[in-house]
Amino acid sequence: MASLFERVAVVGVGLIGGSLALAARRAGLIGDVTGVGRSEANLATARARGIIDRAARDVAAIGPVDLVVLAVPVETTASVAQALVPHLASGTVVTDVGSVKGSIVEALEALLPPSCPFVGTHPIAGSERSGAGAAEADLFRGACCVITPTARTDARALDRVEALWRGVGARVRRMAPADHDRALAWTSHLVHALAYTLVAAIDAEDPNRFALAGPSLREATRVAGSLPELWRDIFLANRTAVSEAIATFSTQLERLRAAIAAGDGDAITRRLEAGRAGRRRLESEQ
Amino acid sequence: MASLFERVAVVGVGLIGGSLALAARRAGLIGDVTGVGRSEANLATARARGIIDRAARDVAAIGPVDLVVLAVPVETTASVAQALVPHLASGTVVTDVGSVKGSIVEALEALLPPSCPFVGTHPIAGSERSGAGAAEADLFRGACCVITPTARTDARALDRVEALWRGVGARVRRMAPADHDRALAWTSHLVHALAYTLVAAIDAEDPNRFALAGPSLREATRVAGSLPELWRDIFLANRTAVSEAIATFSTQLERLRAAIAAGDGDAITRRLEAGRAGRRRLESEQ
Repeated sequence: MASLFERVAVVGVGLIGGSLALAARRAGLIGDVTGVGRSEANLATARARGIIDRAARDVAAIGPVDLVVLAVPVETTASVAQALVPHLASGTVVTDVGSVKGSIVEALEALLPPSCPFVGTHPIAGSERSGAGAAEADLFRGACCVITPTARTDARALDRVEALWRGVGARVRRMAPADHDRALAWTSHLVHALAYTLVAAIDAEDPNRFALAGPSLREATRVAGSLPELWRDIFLANRTAVSEAIATFSTQLERLRAAIAAGDGDAITRRLEAGRAGRRRLESEQ
Repeated sequence: MASLFERVAVVGVGLIGGSLALAARRAGLIGDVTGVGRSEANLATARARGIIDRAARDVAAIGPVDLVVLAVPVETTASVAQALVPHLASGTVVTDVGSVKGSIVEALEALLPPSCPFVGTHPIAGSERSGAGAAEADLFRGACCVITPTARTDARALDRVEALWRGVGARVRRMAPADHDRALAWTSHLVHALAYTLVAAIDAEDPNRFALAGPSLREATRVAGSLPELWRDIFLANRTAVSEAIATFSTQLERLRAAIAAGDGDAITRRLEAGRAGRRRLESEQ
């Protein structure tokens, strides 16, 4: 059986790019893979782990491919795409995996030639680890992958990219880029803002308190081990929605605080019951 | 070898009380165990699982024991102790496992007769599950258990209770009750306030967004599955420290929000770097 994409270039062979290549190769969905990155050590790891067949330091050296996966940090996606344009063969499908979609989709649709269809995606998976060494073939199994077509999206490229994600085990969901960004501001970006702020605040108050950490603090702040530059860029790229989510969350948190300070048990209970009901709905997903 | 406590009564055979009895029996630290609780079904589970030898519906039916473990919700600990007083044999050690210590220690030291030494403890372990069915013999292995002696605490009873917790695998830390409460407001109570508020807020905004949840949201809000009454009572019992922790946290979160809204990448990075450094210190604990 022919591969879905015979020749593939993965620009940024990190946790997400590396895991996608690994999973897609094992599933027989892609053929030859060129990895592009700045770190020779990371590319060597990727080659040693069978994630890529060959390494390139620059997008100019990719050669003709059927698919380019842009798996670089969100703030650099557009500039990498810009550098890629002169080297793209007609018919090459371009996709990205960024955590923010509105600004990226807009920029890439403007940048790429009409002969190279673009499909924006965001696999909601990952961990606080990074690099090709952290890549896992099972990372996307059961995970949700949002695909964000627009009126300009090529239908056949959309179907092929969707087939790629389904083939590595993801549940695919199509959404408009702006809807994705508003939703993710809540379900992911806010969570990271809370985690970083929580450990920073405890550390500033009294780092000895970490000795009293239970599983709740450990789990809630695992993601604060993520790369700060990565999250700075996501916050900046989605700044309006993230800022609004934090503000709305803060208003609700202040209401709980006021109920606690006032010793209003009924008001506290109502808020905690609402949280528990929400948690049950979250658990019923997937 | 004689047991540390030959005859033990566990009032409240839930996740914590049940796990302590199970672990201490397996370690040979305690002998005969009477379980006290209102739910016959839960006590039957506890008996079937070998957590207790016999069940009692009321503290009046306990009979003479060497140790009473009060493992009931924090708001009921004092009233249960009050009911217990007429039935306590001289020399019986009384301990509790509540997540808040200041108010409980003060109340119980005032309530209990001088012949019945009290030792307050708080094992920092648990999960969102509850009941004897959720009890695990390994729950406290490697966990921190805070013991909160005061000037009134009997030295021998303190050592025996400490030996019990060490015997089930906990790392014991002695702290003043008020210091415990201020620390736990940050490392646990605030974490729960954030988790409940986060899922409640997403649910109120648009429950369909839960379909886009990644591991970060799932992990950060696991504890929002906990019993609301339990956490209402903890928040109320520690209301000053919890309210202060939420207020300080909110100030820091607002600074991150303002930096994001202003597009101030350097300010965002500084805050995320501080969070990552805190997370590293947390990870270096145990």
